[in-house]
Amino acid sequence: MEQAERVAGGLRARYDAVRAFTESLCAPLCAEDYVVQSMPDASPVKWHLAHTAWFFEAFVLGQRAGYAPFHPQFGYLFNSYYVTVGERHSRPRRGVLSRPTVEETYRYRRHVDEHMRALLDEIAAGRHLDLAFTIEVGLHHEQQHQELLLTDLKHAMAQNPLRPAIFGGAPPGRRGGAAGELRFVEHADAVRWIGHGEGGFAFDNEAPRHRVFVGAFALADRPVTCGEYLEFMRDGGYARPELWLSGGWDAVVANRWEAPLYWEPRDGGLQLFTLRGLRAIDADEPVCHVSHYEADAYARWAGARLPTEAEWETAAQGALAAAGEVAGGAAPGEAA
Amino acid sequence: MEQAERVAGGLRARYDAVRAFTESLCAPLCAEDYVVQSMPDASPVKWHLAHTAWFFEAFVLGQRAGYAPFHPQFGYLFNSYYVTVGERHSRPRRGVLSRPTVEETYRYRRHVDEHMRALLDEIAAGRHLDLAFTIEVGLHHEQQHQELLLTDLKHAMAQNPLRPAIFGGAPPGRRGGAAGELRFVEHADAVRWIGHGEGGFAFDNEAPRHRVFVGAFALADRPVTCGEYLEFMRDGGYARPELWLSGGWDAVVANRWEAPLYWEPRDGGLQLFTLRGLRAIDADEPVCHVSHYEADAYARWAGARLPTEAEWETAAQGALAAAGEVAGGAAPGEAA
Amino acid sequence: MEQAERVAGGLRARYDAVRAFTESLCAPLCAEDYVVQSMPDASPVKWHLAHTAWFFEAFVLGQRAGYAPFHPQFGYLFNSYYVTVGERHSRPRRGVLSRPTVEETYRYRRHVDEHMRALLDEIAAGRHLDLAFTIEVGLHHEQQHQELLLTDLKHAMAQNPLRPAIFGGAPPGRRGGAAGELRFVEHADAVRWIGHGEGGFAFDNEAPRHRVFVGAFALADRPVTCGEYLEFMRDGGYARPELWLSGGWDAVVANRWEAPLYWEPRDGGLQLFTLRGLRAIDADEPVCHVSHYEADAYARWAGARLPTEAEWETAAQGALAAAGEVAGGAAPGEAA
Amino acid sequence: MEQAERVAGGLRARYDAVRAFTESLCAPLCAEDYVVQSMPDASPVKWHLAHTAWFFEAFVLGQRAGYAPFHPQFGYLFNSYYVTVGERHSRPRRGVLSRPTVEETYRYRRHVDEHMRALLDEIAAGRHLDLAFTIEVGLHHEQQHQELLLTDLKHAMAQNPLRPAIFGGAPPGRRGGAAGELRFVEHADAVRWIGHGEGGFAFDNEAPRHRVFVGAFALADRPVTCGEYLEFMRDGGYARPELWLSGGWDAVVANRWEAPLYWEPRDGGLQLFTLRGLRAIDADEPVCHVSHYEADAYARWAGARLPTEAEWETAAQGALAAAGEVAGGAAPGEAA
Ligand SMILES: [Fe+3]
Ligand SMILES: [Fe+3]
Ligand SMILES: [Fe+3]
Ligand SMILES: [Fe+3]
Repeated sequence: MEQAERVAGGLRARYDAVRAFTESLCAPLCAEDYVVQSMPDASPVKWHLAHTAWFFEAFVLGQRAGYAPFHPQFGYLFNSYYVTVGERHSRPRRGVLSRPTVEETYRYRRHVDEHMRALLDEIAAGRHLDLAFTIEVGLHHEQQHQELLLTDLKHAMAQNPLRPAIFGGAPPGRRGGAAGELRFVEHADAVRWIGHGEGGFAFDNEAPRHRVFVGAFALADRPVTCGEYLEFMRDGGYARPELWLSGGWDAVVANRWEAPLYWEPRDGGLQLFTLRGLRAIDADEPVCHVSHYEADAYARWAGARLPTEAEWETAAQGALAAAGEVAGGAAPGEAA
Repeated sequence: MEQAERVAGGLRARYDAVRAFTESLCAPLCAEDYVVQSMPDASPVKWHLAHTAWFFEAFVLGQRAGYAPFHPQFGYLFNSYYVTVGERHSRPRRGVLSRPTVEETYRYRRHVDEHMRALLDEIAAGRHLDLAFTIEVGLHHEQQHQELLLTDLKHAMAQNPLRPAIFGGAPPGRRGGAAGELRFVEHADAVRWIGHGEGGFAFDNEAPRHRVFVGAFALADRPVTCGEYLEFMRDGGYARPELWLSGGWDAVVANRWEAPLYWEPRDGGLQLFTLRGLRAIDADEPVCHVSHYEADAYARWAGARLPTEAEWETAAQGALAAAGEVAGGAAPGEAA
Repeated sequence: MEQAERVAGGLRARYDAVRAFTESLCAPLCAEDYVVQSMPDASPVKWHLAHTAWFFEAFVLGQRAGYAPFHPQFGYLFNSYYVTVGERHSRPRRGVLSRPTVEETYRYRRHVDEHMRALLDEIAAGRHLDLAFTIEVGLHHEQQHQELLLTDLKHAMAQNPLRPAIFGGAPPGRRGGAAGELRFVEHADAVRWIGHGEGGFAFDNEAPRHRVFVGAFALADRPVTCGEYLEFMRDGGYARPELWLSGGWDAVVANRWEAPLYWEPRDGGLQLFTLRGLRAIDADEPVCHVSHYEADAYARWAGARLPTEAEWETAAQGALAAAGEVAGGAAPGEAA
Repeated sequence: MEQAERVAGGLRARYDAVRAFTESLCAPLCAEDYVVQSMPDASPVKWHLAHTAWFFEAFVLGQRAGYAPFHPQFGYLFNSYYVTVGERHSRPRRGVLSRPTVEETYRYRRHVDEHMRALLDEIAAGRHLDLAFTIEVGLHHEQQHQELLLTDLKHAMAQNPLRPAIFGGAPPGRRGGAAGELRFVEHADAVRWIGHGEGGFAFDNEAPRHRVFVGAFALADRPVTCGEYLEFMRDGGYARPELWLSGGWDAVVANRWEAPLYWEPRDGGLQLFTLRGLRAIDADEPVCHVSHYEADAYARWAGARLPTEAEWETAAQGALAAAGEVAGGAAPGEAA
């Protein structure tokens, strides 16, 4: 019983925090900002808000007898890609929907919150414990959509010739000063354990934990900076096919790429579009919004290559181990 | 001087009425409804509101020294197709713009209204009389956009699976009772005067007045009803290529047309989507939202054909003359 | 009986001449040239050859009991757009068919010729006279396709970077010398008879003969020359939106038009691609391969406009009458 | 010197054999078959013939001073994707080229052959030994294109409603009788050496030899048969989204997949289209022309999964080792 209470308590705290954070991201928006969809792969903010509520409704609340959905058609509108759950509204047409309004969307969230909290009370009382894991999934799902929401919102605002500064205030300062010289950290070859093991949450594509032979490699100790990337650009990076993968070069030509996304020529220089508006590029900040193709071409130009997933995870585990947080690159009961 | 006052007074009354009517159409909308664009050929309501203000700003107010535009980029955003006035925002991307907000759009209109009323005062005082005609054009332009606004809004709402009833209240009743038997009114062959003559406003493509030989023809005395169109449908109208123009048949196949736009199968019957929501089809009301191809196929099926523009204008002039309003199909001082 | 013989004799002479002329156009081609299709709207030469044979097979020979089609699937492959005759092969995919081969296609034509000649013998003997008109249609149909065949072939060859000179020999010299000054011929306003009357063949869209009021107009006495068109180009014709219809300007921008089709920049000048290869442009020859939009923009630039169909037919009738060939712009027994 | 002779002798024998085999594949074709291109990703046979000759011209013969290319524009026409070698003709437009003709294409190949044989004589005499490797690459390149040529030809013929049997003779019988029960062969987990080591030719993406940890797995001892695949189909394989990857299900819906490519419903059953025409499907033959998505869905349905590249190479090395041909899964001088 105590364990049920503890589980429910933990879930409730996280539920409240995650849901509130999603909405705090939207606080500076006006109703119109919630509606627009800038490309088929993106979704309106409104859709993200409703879809993350729908997830709890469909996969948690809807599993219990007697729950009446908030609206009979919201399942159709806010299902995304879960083919087995039924038909759904066409993704590229999400920006055509003015209704439900923003206000009704928030009411939908309130409705779901109320029922979720009642359910968490029941879980605390030892009932429906089997739903705890799906609630956990739903929270991670919503956190993923927080990232998508910001990404989609930024893309939409960047299409607007007014380049609106959606979030107020000055851009947050970069922590620390100059980027410092880039150094490569060596890793010996070894069979490594990769993937999520026991304990804590992970998405299914992060498991099972398995062994990978990782050859000796060296990984840079910090991200590439905008200043370094500018050198690549000034060295003709976007005009030299030999630096690019074949598909990458096709993309350069087809899309006329000349700089990372959101870098804009203004007043003879380059500026960066952010949700706080346009601002100067800081040569010491990490370069962002480059495609895999651009990252790959940069690495080739720099005489290096991109790391594999296993190399990256190896390095990350090492960094965590060095920080004393986890046991490192070995499975329990096994020498590295 | 008196004439200037009369002209300005007439313009101001019409200006106030037209501008207010545009906004009265939008009164039932929520902010989200103003934003959506359902297809490349349509525009958001917000765009119509701003574009019709921009017309007065660009072609009337902007002609006077010293006028400062409300916003330096609105010319770019709300110019439509007037290539010679400068670059403009891509039409199919109008639905991506959340800003300016609805509220700011109305402020834009208020700004233009203020300056326009000041200008009308000056005209009343005998200055800037040369702008009177462009103001007249701007009012007709805004009236055209009232029709577009409703058409685009209806299309957008029809894409929404919720089929929202934007306008409240019951659908207005059709005037009159049963449609009555369709009769054909005969017209003898003659050289007719067609197009706008002197007096009153007309768009440039309605002039000049010119002569056309119109062969003998007969035109129905009332529109085709939904009931009659249903007979065409039940007789396989949408499945018989011999009834259609070649391009029309291609459209039937490509778009899987089976009924007029906004006719929807519901509960085993057909319903009509309107801005007041779905409702039953009245067999006696005129059929609407048929393409030229559908009208042409219907006419062929009915053993008739569509009238030419000159035939239609001939018949319309006759009806007006019969009503004692105009002199009929001849130019002043000339025998038919 | 004598009349049947005369009709059949006339038809046979024309049949032999038309069919032979089609094939003479293809004599310089190699097998590969018959196969290619350069755009969805064009057809391979091979297709034209088979399709014109199929017309006689489907609409003439196939009307008689006992005729066995040359190949059971050729109706499917070589039907073009006659929806009511049955399903057909997709037009944009005609260039994917290597079979039937060129040789088999000619055997198909021989087969049809044999049966057509036997039929013409029967017509001479007074039987099947009802098929004479369809044979006449088939011959005009084949003549239309002669024009299409050359047009499509030229387009295909122009796509080939080798710019092959398909037809041998030097380009035929232009008849006559300098173009001479362009003069406008005046026509008074009048009700004119337009369209095909009695006697001789005409396609159905050329009839019936009907009256049109044609206002006073003046038409140039010769085509616009390449030299005149070059002046339009040098005066910025392709860069001035005010000279173009709205759809025309869209086409200029979308297709980056800068000159008529088949005008190619070579060695600092402009050359003309023809089926005899590239050659210099003659300033005195009529400009060809301009779209309706280009012709319209040229006319506007020149302070004129394109004639209507009725104006053109009026002028052509006048020229024929002046040459003593026909009675002119009036119906028999009627004053103009 | 003897080594140069041996190298040149070996290359010449292989050169003659590979070039002759390419042409033997085309022997049954008529000129028209060489021209067609059935989709943007495919190339005409003629293009394959010229492109494989161009490879030797550009990368071998062209490296020597004094070589004059057969035709100045063939580099443009028959370069494929080697961006660094220069501009090239648009791939999806290859089927628009009737010229060079088939006959000229073979002359091109003869020209290249002549020069290549003269070069091989020089290599035998000890000169230009550095070109030997590129010649080896060119032969493997041409063998790759033999496979592409047949694949593209088959696709083109399958688009033709006549379903032409390009190759004569009866289909070759399948070797052996019934497929036998499918058994899974177990492999223990181990670090394996993967990729091309020393000796013999390999493409650059097959090297370098490197270690991979391959977890324990079992691989079937023979391909899946058409009979087994039919069971999958009859069990609703193409109608059950849960069996497919997300992109796979999208492909099923978008392309209306219901069976492997080239399986055609005929006379109530299924037939297989081959270059020898349509024939019955043999339940015991391996299923062919399934996409990765279809193979994946089948495997999931069968309670298995597709092998990784390393698993497949492990199993293949084991089979080769069992056959006594190679040393197996270990690097030289290292225990497995
Ligand atoms: Fe989601
Ligand atoms: Fe407008
Ligand atoms: Fe035709
Ligand atoms: Fe290649």
